[in-house]
Amino acid sequence: MYRSHNCGELNASNINTEVTLAGWVQKSRDKGFMNWVDLRDRYGITQLIFDESRTDNAVFELAKTLGREFVIQVKGTVIEREAKNKNIPTGEIEILVSELTVLNSALTPPFTIEDETDGGEDIRMKYRYLDIRRNPVKNSLLFRHKVAMEVRKYLFDLDFCEVETPYLIKSTPEGARDFVVPSRMNQGQFYALPQSPQTFKQLLMVGGMDKYFQIVKCFRDEDLRADRQPEFTQIDCEMAFVEQEDILNIFEGLTRHLLKEIKGIEVDKFPRITYDYAMKTYGNDKPDIRFGMKFGELNEFAQQKEFPVFNTAELVVGIAVPEAGNYTRKEIDGLIDWVKRPQVGASGMVYVKCNEDGTFKSSVDKFYDQEDLANWAKATEANAGDMIFVLSGPANKTRAQLSALRMELAARLGLRKPEEFAPLWVVDFPLLELDEESGRYHAMHHPFTSPKPEDMALLETEPGKVRANAYDMVLNGNEIGGGSIRIHDKATQQLMFKYLGFTEEEAKAQFGFLMDAFQFGAPPHGGLAFGLDRLVAILGGQETIRDFIAFPKNNSGRDVMIDAPAAIDNTQLQELSIKLDLK
Amino acid sequence: MYRSHNCGELNASNINTEVTLAGWVQKSRDKGFMNWVDLRDRYGITQLIFDESRTDNAVFELAKTLGREFVIQVKGTVIEREAKNKNIPTGEIEILVSELTVLNSALTPPFTIEDETDGGEDIRMKYRYLDIRRNPVKNSLLFRHKVAMEVRKYLFDLDFCEVETPYLIKSTPEGARDFVVPSRMNQGQFYALPQSPQTFKQLLMVGGMDKYFQIVKCFRDEDLRADRQPEFTQIDCEMAFVEQEDILNIFEGLTRHLLKEIKGIEVDKFPRITYDYAMKTYGNDKPDIRFGMKFGELNEFAQQKEFPVFNTAELVVGIAVPEAGNYTRKEIDGLIDWVKRPQVGASGMVYVKCNEDGTFKSSVDKFYDQEDLANWAKATEANAGDMIFVLSGPANKTRAQLSALRMELAARLGLRKPEEFAPLWVVDFPLLELDEESGRYHAMHHPFTSPKPEDMALLETEPGKVRANAYDMVLNGNEIGGGSIRIHDKATQQLMFKYLGFTEEEAKAQFGFLMDAFQFGAPPHGGLAFGLDRLVAILGGQETIRDFIAFPKNNSGRDVMIDAPAAIDNTQLQELSIKLDLK
Repeated sequence: MYRSHNCGELNASNINTEVTLAGWVQKSRDKGFMNWVDLRDRYGITQLIFDESRTDNAVFELAKTLGREFVIQVKGTVIEREAKNKNIPTGEIEILVSELTVLNSALTPPFTIEDETDGGEDIRMKYRYLDIRRNPVKNSLLFRHKVAMEVRKYLFDLDFCEVETPYLIKSTPEGARDFVVPSRMNQGQFYALPQSPQTFKQLLMVGGMDKYFQIVKCFRDEDLRADRQPEFTQIDCEMAFVEQEDILNIFEGLTRHLLKEIKGIEVDKFPRITYDYAMKTYGNDKPDIRFGMKFGELNEFAQQKEFPVFNTAELVVGIAVPEAGNYTRKEIDGLIDWVKRPQVGASGMVYVKCNEDGTFKSSVDKFYDQEDLANWAKATEANAGDMIFVLSGPANKTRAQLSALRMELAARLGLRKPEEFAPLWVVDFPLLELDEESGRYHAMHHPFTSPKPEDMALLETEPGKVRANAYDMVLNGNEIGGGSIRIHDKATQQLMFKYLGFTEEEAKAQFGFLMDAFQFGAPPHGGLAFGLDRLVAILGGQETIRDFIAFPKNNSGRDVMIDAPAAIDNTQLQELSIKLDLK
Repeated sequence: MYRSHNCGELNASNINTEVTLAGWVQKSRDKGFMNWVDLRDRYGITQLIFDESRTDNAVFELAKTLGREFVIQVKGTVIEREAKNKNIPTGEIEILVSELTVLNSALTPPFTIEDETDGGEDIRMKYRYLDIRRNPVKNSLLFRHKVAMEVRKYLFDLDFCEVETPYLIKSTPEGARDFVVPSRMNQGQFYALPQSPQTFKQLLMVGGMDKYFQIVKCFRDEDLRADRQPEFTQIDCEMAFVEQEDILNIFEGLTRHLLKEIKGIEVDKFPRITYDYAMKTYGNDKPDIRFGMKFGELNEFAQQKEFPVFNTAELVVGIAVPEAGNYTRKEIDGLIDWVKRPQVGASGMVYVKCNEDGTFKSSVDKFYDQEDLANWAKATEANAGDMIFVLSGPANKTRAQLSALRMELAARLGLRKPEEFAPLWVVDFPLLELDEESGRYHAMHHPFTSPKPEDMALLETEPGKVRANAYDMVLNGNEIGGGSIRIHDKATQQLMFKYLGFTEEEAKAQFGFLMDAFQFGAPPHGGLAFGLDRLVAILGGQETIRDFIAFPKNNSGRDVMIDAPAAIDNTQLQELSIKLDLK
């Protein structure tokens, strides 16, 4: 071992101890006759002192040659520091160095290895191994590890069994695009990388494994948006002989366990709201409930007057922004411009100031009197001093627009507090959603989700109204997990494929093994999956997942550090019986 | 929840309790007025009783319709069993059923769901979800889970951090063949699936993570031999600021922890032998030391006489088989035939019976006297009653042949006891091995392994003699883990690539990022990887890994259950800018 202690553990109790440390030179301060070096490793920083009068001359001179990020080993004595640093655990001591070995030199790093670095995203990704030396990244990876371990502990104690499912599986056109892997031994055939272990975990239930989980990589070849990775990690879970209530309780327990063990926060029983309620109240199926600004529907109070914009709208809906009544005309215009940006897409916005004296001043005073506006204030739960913003138009679009405004205002008002956690369940998701382009219904969750028995009859007549035994866990405005009770009989599964537009042959070719399995004694079962990358980022109080992934890819799906993907040899192509077909 | 208890937990202390159970019908015995059903789940079997005189008639009649593997839910009362079964935990009680719900029916399974099944390998793989219901498979998966959890606990407690490394990386022609993944977004380019996270874990050390591990899937597109899978799981570990001794101690500790926690076995400090010693003494770099039969080299005693076969051989070597002195002529001839099979390849075999009276009887009495044979007995450590078998020929080949014979005889003599564990370290592996076909040297471990400093000078003159800081952990004749101290400076790494026949351009294109990283302050580091599939199989006392993998592939790399790999759509091919190139 190159060290007797690490750089984070020595303190006043170690004074006079002979120690050996190894690590990186964080910085040095050369005062001529004295030279201090901050030695860094994963565990912390320890100050080294080289003193002309107390240090061997050769060692003293060698210390002067140390550059940033050199890897060194030192032997010396722990002594009391003159100028103590109360901010770090090792701040009371320093090491009077007697021996110094340079284990490796270092070129000057392309960015500073500091919490606030001067390196931009691109250069940090190219030299990710240097970026990982920085506390924000290093601590995020350690944090992720701790979360994963706590997940395993909780599930292990509840008798869940972690089972590894295969990575080389079969491509299915349903859902997102697969990454595929040409098979050399089976000419012209391809494996696919799993988008999730969905069918395998269901087969494990058929196989009697009963309580399954896995922390597992999944893959989706989609056009990447910011903060989306082609490979991502799920906490994947499934149980047999359970109803929705059991799943919600157990995985609410998991989240509560994490919040307690990792953040020291106790949370109450999670609120549960329906998908319909979420959409009506927050315009969003993953509402951030750390703050209010619930939607107030105003059709009743806004459509009986002479304002044609509202009279012709499917929905008139507003939110009361707390203590925003004093916004200037300029601020309000800024917000109107904000909702009119193409990303949001509103055509305009009405506002109502709720004055401290109980009166109202609105941009539509021409059409609405104080009594009307008082009704608006009541519907949006506005208080004196608030500002009501009102949008109108087609219901779904308008809700989405107002939801965007609500989130934006919350951010501006500092209501999205990273260290506050407000989890909830959204339940009763629709089974199907209409793809407006193709006019076809798609499974909202996936084709294995069971419809609510009482809604089955609607499948033929109003498929969009059928609710599923499907649920999402939402934390601070992010969907962190979702799942469903599954179909577990062949007939229903066949019916579902039929409604999703599969021919009988297609269904059999792609999912025949699952429907076969359902004939051999499939138990009722259900489960869910959490997105681990997102979960750890939120628990860590961060907006972006990238620092919680050791080696992330950029928005073109490239690993710029190793320069992948890359061309491969012709020999490899030939062995795989494929050739390039470039456009 | 469909149950109040599982099928493995009720006993005499629960008598008179009302319970709800759910599970599969293992079997039923219908005696007309009485009907017993064994209800099975993951946790065990509980006997249900339906009694004409005590059970509601509708329930009683319904019970008669239950077939094997039906999924049912029952409510009833725990009662004392008349005929107790001491062999199972629930053997003292049964459930007098009051309500019965058939949750799902089942077709007759294609093989029996019993410990000893009537299903062959192929059918069991096709219906793997039914196979998993059988105790031997189910228990193997639960066992694997427990081993993995204990690995994590041990490493977590030692401050190791589990870091997920990417699955979509870059193909490198060094080593085995890669599986590749065409990139849609980067036309004509491919990712590769990792054969191991080797370079990433080294970059984590450069990044200061210090103690890394990961239980991770790895991929090799090799022609499959029995018991080899295209995807397999490694316990992958790396540490910085360590020497070989530290790695051996920590991972010996891990194995000792597993043996103690999982098997309840305490083992002494592991023996350490060099590669050279292993090859000379066991003809094998992964010797099974649960038994003796060490090699005795006989050149000194066998080559001074008139037996031309031995006189012209590079090596004459024998083993003493304990208590085999009474083998019949027929048995001996059988063994001679066995070593002459093409798989072993010996041209003949000499034997020496060590009689109880201290005399010897051999197949070469014409050439050797009693004194010669006594020397052979001494060299092979033979006792009275043993049989010595002697092979001769080119050293390496002969050692391999005798090693095969040694293992075969140990198996026949029952010396490979599955519940006995004899771990050891083999150290000082050669850095390079000669590929006889190409005449080129290959890295024996991998190109990142550091040569022993004292052997560096031999690299130019006798590359085959350079020893590496490389080590394998061997358990019961299987290599279960291996690793090395790595090169951590650019110059040595470049030199290594040069000796392995890389041009400077090739080295830079493939591993430039790693050599770059070494310039920015790389610490000394090393590690190892265990093969989890093999490790759990051995700890589980099994020869084959297949039952420890939930969904294994067959020897053609196919998953016969889901029928993968398979053809993909032309649209998919076009999107990926590839086309088929079938021969």
